[in-house]
Amino acid sequence: MNQEPNPASDAIGRLVQEFSKLPGIGPKSAQRITFYLLRSSEEEAAALAEALLSLKQRINLCSLCCNVTELDPCPICRNPQRETSQVCIVEQPQDVIALEHTGVYKGLYHVLHGAISPTEGIGADDIRISELLSRLQNNTVQEVILATNTNLEGEQTAMYLSRVITPLNIKVTRLARGLPFGTELEYADDVTLTRALEGRQEF
Amino acid sequence: MNQEPNPASDAIGRLVQEFSKLPGIGPKSAQRITFYLLRSSEEEAAALAEALLSLKQRINLCSLCCNVTELDPCPICRNPQRETSQVCIVEQPQDVIALEHTGVYKGLYHVLHGAISPTEGIGADDIRISELLSRLQNNTVQEVILATNTNLEGEQTAMYLSRVITPLNIKVTRLARGLPFGTELEYADDVTLTRALEGRQEF
Repeated sequence: MNQEPNPASDAIGRLVQEFSKLPGIGPKSAQRITFYLLRSSEEEAAALAEALLSLKQRINLCSLCCNVTELDPCPICRNPQRETSQVCIVEQPQDVIALEHTGVYKGLYHVLHGAISPTEGIGADDIRISELLSRLQNNTVQEVILATNTNLEGEQTAMYLSRVITPLNIKVTRLARGLPFGTELEYADDVTLTRALEGRQEF
Repeated sequence: MNQEPNPASDAIGRLVQEFSKLPGIGPKSAQRITFYLLRSSEEEAAALAEALLSLKQRINLCSLCCNVTELDPCPICRNPQRETSQVCIVEQPQDVIALEHTGVYKGLYHVLHGAISPTEGIGADDIRISELLSRLQNNTVQEVILATNTNLEGEQTAMYLSRVITPLNIKVTRLARGLPFGTELEYADDVTLTRALEGRQEF
């Protein structure tokens, strides 16, 4: 539907097309959003446009942890309350948000911006691993927590990192794998169950 | 989640919040879209921002049919190939797109921008009915096709329009109501089945 010229207007058709490019927005949703904006106040569309433009202008990567930030170092790296002996390694900036949301972790982060994936041709040099390694040279870090995704790419990345970080005399841990909260055992998949068994803990 | 300040950046948090205001986009999708734009090229975010800004600047209502348009009269009203004796009345500009998509209808439209709804305090004066009636004075229109939604508000609006247009000696028809394409009779609701029975046609 987004291929067809809108009979009423190019401006509408173009906005529908731009929205359709975004992840999770099909042509029908794009059209619904466009007509919603057409009915709403001029300020609302302008606020969205302004937020879009300032995103790219103001966001850079933190020179320490590689997270997205407006300040360098980022608010987490410059926070004196954070535990500098721990670094949690994640694939994406969104993962930092998810972990911060728990309120449990008080250490620092390192954002890889991807995972090693031979099938997609992404090697160790294509993600922010060299930045991590030079950061680990200064001896303040005592524990690295691997928090990559639990899919194939994430596991490969964790394995690689464990191999290169262990020789630096830094403790390497990773997030526990097991049954997620609220699972009925009956419906848990084999891999999850196997890992839950292997990782069983004393009660 | 969109209530919390983003630990990494105000610019990210603000864009997430702006996207969350759009229909069908929750805070999680808003975050996904924002980080997608952060990874994509500067041109992509700029194109979306520009499309947003030009939407409000360039779109007006057609002075004849009240559809959204950049030109006045709109491309449909100014098209000499369209049948000017028929006017199809719809609630929203999106409805014109849906009907045009069938390629079947060759007449003109009139967009009401809403429906009569006593419960929401929307009366006949709050939608574009007076524009329609003055348009019907000039004697070229021979048939008005009511294509309002088949919900309570749409039916009330159709009933009202039929009452005020019939005295003008114009034929008033409405879209057929019945079973939608692909229905299994077993699962059709009572109202649909009743209307399909009442509106049965010779085979």
